[in-house]
Amino acid sequence: MTYAIGIMSGTSLDGVDAALVNITGVNEETEVELIAFETLEIPEKIDQQIRESFSIESSNSALISSLNVKLGELFADAAIKVSKAAKINLKDVDFIASHGQTIYHIPEETEKYSSSTLQIGEAAVIAEKTGCTVVSNFRPRDMTVGGQGAPIVPYSEYILYRHHERTRLLQNIGGIGNVTVIPPNASLNDLVAFDTGPGNMIINELSQHFYNEPYDKNGEHAKQGQVNEKVLEDWMNHPFILREPPKTTGREEFGLQFVQEYLNKYKLPAEDWLATATMFTARSIAKSVDKYTTEKTDLIIGGGGSYNPTLVQMIKEVLPEISVIRQEDLGLSSDAKEAVAMVILGNQTLHRQPSNVPSATGASKPVILGSVTFGEQN
Amino acid sequence: MTYAIGIMSGTSLDGVDAALVNITGVNEETEVELIAFETLEIPEKIDQQIRESFSIESSNSALISSLNVKLGELFADAAIKVSKAAKINLKDVDFIASHGQTIYHIPEETEKYSSSTLQIGEAAVIAEKTGCTVVSNFRPRDMTVGGQGAPIVPYSEYILYRHHERTRLLQNIGGIGNVTVIPPNASLNDLVAFDTGPGNMIINELSQHFYNEPYDKNGEHAKQGQVNEKVLEDWMNHPFILREPPKTTGREEFGLQFVQEYLNKYKLPAEDWLATATMFTARSIAKSVDKYTTEKTDLIIGGGGSYNPTLVQMIKEVLPEISVIRQEDLGLSSDAKEAVAMVILGNQTLHRQPSNVPSATGASKPVILGSVTFGEQN
Repeated sequence: MTYAIGIMSGTSLDGVDAALVNITGVNEETEVELIAFETLEIPEKIDQQIRESFSIESSNSALISSLNVKLGELFADAAIKVSKAAKINLKDVDFIASHGQTIYHIPEETEKYSSSTLQIGEAAVIAEKTGCTVVSNFRPRDMTVGGQGAPIVPYSEYILYRHHERTRLLQNIGGIGNVTVIPPNASLNDLVAFDTGPGNMIINELSQHFYNEPYDKNGEHAKQGQVNEKVLEDWMNHPFILREPPKTTGREEFGLQFVQEYLNKYKLPAEDWLATATMFTARSIAKSVDKYTTEKTDLIIGGGGSYNPTLVQMIKEVLPEISVIRQEDLGLSSDAKEAVAMVILGNQTLHRQPSNVPSATGASKPVILGSVTFGEQN
Repeated sequence: MTYAIGIMSGTSLDGVDAALVNITGVNEETEVELIAFETLEIPEKIDQQIRESFSIESSNSALISSLNVKLGELFADAAIKVSKAAKINLKDVDFIASHGQTIYHIPEETEKYSSSTLQIGEAAVIAEKTGCTVVSNFRPRDMTVGGQGAPIVPYSEYILYRHHERTRLLQNIGGIGNVTVIPPNASLNDLVAFDTGPGNMIINELSQHFYNEPYDKNGEHAKQGQVNEKVLEDWMNHPFILREPPKTTGREEFGLQFVQEYLNKYKLPAEDWLATATMFTARSIAKSVDKYTTEKTDLIIGGGGSYNPTLVQMIKEVLPEISVIRQEDLGLSSDAKEAVAMVILGNQTLHRQPSNVPSATGASKPVILGSVTFGEQN
């Protein structure tokens, strides 16, 4: 029995996720069992300071120095919360693996700045407040060998979902959609991961525009509408959709500006826009994974989009030949899955084993991620 | 034989110092031998970005994210430089201990910010570029238990200078003067460390004012002057000088404003000002260490002030009963001493042993400092 806690705080700031697991083995022999999962709300003052830290205009050294400590305390509190929920004493927890809060990411070198990524949440604070050894700061090492430092979860997906005869497609649907492809009986090098196109981004922009709602709750607006094939065809010819993976996209390509452009170009009823945008996400996923699907393929949907039944239904329609299931139906929520992923990475680090996936991040080689901060003195 | 490299980059930005040592044992049994010492100049572009990172106005998340990587590369280069000078292959170096560049320090909590300290210079970059395991980020842990995160060197001074029958006073003279007191046959708890008052700060301000020179080279101006006893008496009654240790001071108390005030209050020849300021540093040191001196006491002077013979001579005059020697005369320059100190701290960390000195930093207990980032995979 090795108890460990994974801590994850994403850029959406919807809470600090903490998973307490039992983890045994290392590398391919790693086995993980989720014992408890908790989310800790981010206090408003810290939330506001994190948002300030995201922008060049409102961030500065003093803010980052201070926030680094405050987030360390918050992450420790999340660990304490999940250990209480699991009724497991922190003394019996072998280690905590903390992702940290990403406050800046520079994917490509510019004239002024180096390619780099900055996660904060001081490990020394977590270690001292919990007494546990902490593994943290996983992303920068991958970037030292030419990787993007992202995606960070494929190694854990490989451990959790690889299958000797089935293809596993881990499809995450956040603002952007991204997939990790795990071929049957794969070795780590066989993994592929890339962005599939928009996830909820266009749907959300249209919801805001037509209904003043931040998202299409349960896909109800889309359900009322008709997919407009002309608009859909236009979208499916977007350069990003036509490009071969590996590829990444973002708000620059499918954000507000994209939506405005098409609202000017075509006139449709509101619900048809929603239906079409939802089908676009489904179709772009189908097109992306097409070349990887085999006779026995599971598409496992996670992220916010998995809570949109209209979207899930559409994905099933456009991929009739494969099994489409939701992450949640496997007993591991998307949030829990990311926190568990941290434990798997931390376990690798403590065994001095790599956990980046070069075929996913673009790194030139496997490297040991993260740093170790000791808990109590031996 | 355990080869290790210590890397130090101070706030004066006069270069990255790298010491390659042979270190054996741990805790009281630690023994260190300096093999090579090198300083790497900080390229102008990085120097400028570090200065930008010091200020709230010109710093931001992108700058810090990028500079963290650039400094990691620079620290790795310093390690490579000293290993070449020592003709020792990095493969044979067990670990690198890196202090990092302090870009911000918040000693006391404010309404807006937590007490915290921020050192950057990504350990993952150093580890990947050198292949060596890296120990870094020593200061924050001490602050988690109520310490100031500073001074960081007393543990190493204890290891290097403690004596079974002599009192050792490690007097550093930078802008501010600070001393570590190691009583004869001391245990770690017996150490005391505090600021003694101005070091070169007033001397430098006066040099700038009267001679347009950044400092009084070799103490030549002071040597020409007469100490004005009235001004000196006034200064020796400054509240900081009268206060009992532990105490810390800075530019707020003995900077430009202080100098302007006295230039208005008294009219003296330029060289008398310099002589009086130099004697003030000597007298404030003497007053500070007085209660700790025993029959057999060595005052070991380091820092920029040790290169001012007039100041050293004055210290000898006001402390006739003790032995006054310069750090350099012991074969270990002040710069080298700090880089060696990092190795001693890193060695403690890798043995999971503490290396803060609670009686010096104000911490409530000894804690293991720093984080470990692994080099090559085992």
